[in-house]
Amino acid sequence: MHPLKTRQPYPRNQWWAAAYASEVGRQLLGRTILGDRIILYRTESGEAVALSGLCPHRAFPLEKGCLAGDRVRCGYHGFTFSSTGALEEVPSQTAIPAKADLRRFPVAERGGVVWIWTGAETLADETLLPDMAALGPANPDWATEQHIPATIAARYTLLIDNLLDLSHASFIHADTIPGGDYVASLPVELVETPASLNVRRIGRGLPSNPFFKLMFPHHEGPLDQAFDAEYFGPHLIRTGGALFDSAGGARLGTQNYLHIITPETPGSLHYFVVTSRDFATGNPALGRTHVDMGLRIQPQDKAAIEAIEQVLQGLSHPPREVSARCDTGALKVRHRLESQIRAEEQAA
Amino acid sequence: MHPLKTRQPYPRNQWWAAAYASEVGRQLLGRTILGDRIILYRTESGEAVALSGLCPHRAFPLEKGCLAGDRVRCGYHGFTFSSTGALEEVPSQTAIPAKADLRRFPVAERGGVVWIWTGAETLADETLLPDMAALGPANPDWATEQHIPATIAARYTLLIDNLLDLSHASFIHADTIPGGDYVASLPVELVETPASLNVRRIGRGLPSNPFFKLMFPHHEGPLDQAFDAEYFGPHLIRTGGALFDSAGGARLGTQNYLHIITPETPGSLHYFVVTSRDFATGNPALGRTHVDMGLRIQPQDKAAIEAIEQVLQGLSHPPREVSARCDTGALKVRHRLESQIRAEEQAA
Amino acid sequence: MHPLKTRQPYPRNQWWAAAYASEVGRQLLGRTILGDRIILYRTESGEAVALSGLCPHRAFPLEKGCLAGDRVRCGYHGFTFSSTGALEEVPSQTAIPAKADLRRFPVAERGGVVWIWTGAETLADETLLPDMAALGPANPDWATEQHIPATIAARYTLLIDNLLDLSHASFIHADTIPGGDYVASLPVELVETPASLNVRRIGRGLPSNPFFKLMFPHHEGPLDQAFDAEYFGPHLIRTGGALFDSAGGARLGTQNYLHIITPETPGSLHYFVVTSRDFATGNPALGRTHVDMGLRIQPQDKAAIEAIEQVLQGLSHPPREVSARCDTGALKVRHRLESQIRAEEQAA
Repeated sequence: MHPLKTRQPYPRNQWWAAAYASEVGRQLLGRTILGDRIILYRTESGEAVALSGLCPHRAFPLEKGCLAGDRVRCGYHGFTFSSTGALEEVPSQTAIPAKADLRRFPVAERGGVVWIWTGAETLADETLLPDMAALGPANPDWATEQHIPATIAARYTLLIDNLLDLSHASFIHADTIPGGDYVASLPVELVETPASLNVRRIGRGLPSNPFFKLMFPHHEGPLDQAFDAEYFGPHLIRTGGALFDSAGGARLGTQNYLHIITPETPGSLHYFVVTSRDFATGNPALGRTHVDMGLRIQPQDKAAIEAIEQVLQGLSHPPREVSARCDTGALKVRHRLESQIRAEEQAA
Repeated sequence: MHPLKTRQPYPRNQWWAAAYASEVGRQLLGRTILGDRIILYRTESGEAVALSGLCPHRAFPLEKGCLAGDRVRCGYHGFTFSSTGALEEVPSQTAIPAKADLRRFPVAERGGVVWIWTGAETLADETLLPDMAALGPANPDWATEQHIPATIAARYTLLIDNLLDLSHASFIHADTIPGGDYVASLPVELVETPASLNVRRIGRGLPSNPFFKLMFPHHEGPLDQAFDAEYFGPHLIRTGGALFDSAGGARLGTQNYLHIITPETPGSLHYFVVTSRDFATGNPALGRTHVDMGLRIQPQDKAAIEAIEQVLQGLSHPPREVSARCDTGALKVRHRLESQIRAEEQAA
Repeated sequence: MHPLKTRQPYPRNQWWAAAYASEVGRQLLGRTILGDRIILYRTESGEAVALSGLCPHRAFPLEKGCLAGDRVRCGYHGFTFSSTGALEEVPSQTAIPAKADLRRFPVAERGGVVWIWTGAETLADETLLPDMAALGPANPDWATEQHIPATIAARYTLLIDNLLDLSHASFIHADTIPGGDYVASLPVELVETPASLNVRRIGRGLPSNPFFKLMFPHHEGPLDQAFDAEYFGPHLIRTGGALFDSAGGARLGTQNYLHIITPETPGSLHYFVVTSRDFATGNPALGRTHVDMGLRIQPQDKAAIEAIEQVLQGLSHPPREVSARCDTGALKVRHRLESQIRAEEQAA
């Protein structure tokens, strides 16, 4: 992706996934998000906390410190902070220096993910969080798998580009996505709403195969399969979608692949993949298959966009870029993202 | 070597070795040359092809794609190009975007090397190619060995400097070049023509040694040995030269060491060494000896100029540079090279 | 530590430790000091020599050359220099190029350390050398251990900061320094003289422990222990100090930890730790214990300041910095150091 035509590389008034909920516990977890070091942990009552991750005393990374009850103690000289970030204790003196508090990030847990708000705290609005119940992970009637998180040495926009043009499945994933070879040849439909932009493809009359059989053991005939790529924001893209009986048109079920993206630095990103379905929810073999497939598919995308990132870093000018019709969705998304960032820049 | 007093680090209107002919086949070979990614392959009829190595769609390295007949298919979204670089196929549409062709580099094979012209295509002139028949490799009556190509983390001018002052043989190669310890003490003669600049030394009355014996089993007495360093351009330097009977002055044979140099980036180079002789051509032991010696000699030069490159990269200013009389040839070559680049800059 | 408010990162009119005396012998030792490559060796008569480490001919690192008697021969083209740095020999010519001498650094050996003066030679004054006799290592009545030298990827000021605030012992070294957990709670006294600045703490009535027992096998009762941090300059900080019988107040002995610091580059340093004591000098078990403890303590400091260096390098602006009362000594030292550098800058 060309560099965005904005000054900031990413929007800050945004909920971003900081970690899976299961990663956050009674140990300090350090993570770099939007270029800032952050620490994550849970209080004794279980509440997730996100604080800036550098001690204001001598810039020591707080993730190397420890928890003392609900408080964070720096591992270098013992400065100790409350779970709201307030400096509360300095060894060998009783006075507390002023302006020494840690920044506290608004936190919300949804669908097994700890989301943090990286912008102005007054603008943090939980209604802007993704609807993880509708998407599956926060709905107890769906079966959900969290794939191992990855850090990718590429700007986050390259992963958005990747996901919004699923024709790549026919080439990069030809050997790892059953039916992927159909994707590039399918016509594309754009569905745009204020909340999302969906690049839709539907494969029709796909003959049965072992993967379909695993999903729908009692279905014999061909299927219609959605290959959606729905952008909800730079933090979340949904692929997959509904599967139908080609004969009667009945929906057999919905299989969502949620791609949760968080910029780590201007040139790297955190990638959380969550798969969720509303059928065969009691079949653990299907869940394992999704995770196993992810272990083969995600490294292919990682390798592809890391190769492009290396190309971009080696160039003094952005490369020329030729687009095809099937890039329309990706280009519109790029425009949405630039508008979001530019609105922030103008408000600032 | 001091930084050249030019804006560009290397000339572009120049034939450069891209690869040995044997490296180029029915697999895509990716190589960076003069800072540009290039792919090399052969068509089904065996013609060598060199194209720019980045897909104009999303900057994916084409070397990760595949050949489809004579065409190159990008591994990311399947954009497909003819062997002349023309974009011919885009999945899921019939229209072909304009201005999406790959750059095609003029190619010529000579002496087992694939040469590419990196400048303006209209200026590509095969009469400017090195005369690989006169030098040996393209002459079937000579015996020729190609040494394993190396990539060296040093600006290419450091290797030119190295080769133009063979007095280094007495120090760096004291243990690997038989007779190398003589070189620094030999007087130097400069032979300058428009086509080349030769820094000539002749070792006279050198007593026989096992290496001479291997070359000339039937010769007993002392030899006169040329230690030439002949610059044909930044792409090619010939060392070695003729060997004579010290007694009668008869030429016993000529042993050329061809040093074929291609800038990879401003701070690195590709190095192809080819040895060729017009005597004892049926003796494979001599050929193996040359390759084995190269495996010990070339890493010594690599280590030396990589050490200097690291020094130069660590300095904020170019280092002071003191020259001796035996540097005259190297300094004149530096001047030739600067003139070549400056002529290009002025024409542009 | 914040970047110093000076143009130069370090003072040059200063004695710095180049190496332990035992490291310097009849092999060329290459070391980077204050950003400059330097070679160190001994003449045949045993005198330590320090010369600039790049050949002025083609910038080859001289450490890759060899000694020829007392002279240094470049490993690339054989330029040969006397032990005063004078170019004396150039292969294949008798004339010696002008302005080709190596810089010679004034050298002094004290306390098992080779000190070099990196500033103007006329200002080199041996009375400015640290008093290694008073500190222990140059006093034959003391027992002294040299710890393995380390190179640390952090600006040298971070190590000065570290040592001047020993409250870190209670956190970073809680498991490796016996009694370290007391340090942060002890009151601090500053003792300032023109020659040094000492941040003094005294632990009183410390109960006996195995380490005290090893030091003073015949002493049963509690001890008073000094935790000094005495800055003599950026090259030398002394920690430790005297131990007293808590009952009578008699001094039992003095244990000095000398921290000898030399900037390698703006972002790295050489660290030489020397321990010296005036008691139990005949007990090798105590010496081994000091070295073994150093092997556990020094990597903790290295890891801490390397973590901070990485933080600083990742930030576009210096981090905010909040200081506490126990930082007063470190802040005054920072001021001394800035004054020293600024005086140099103004004189230049």
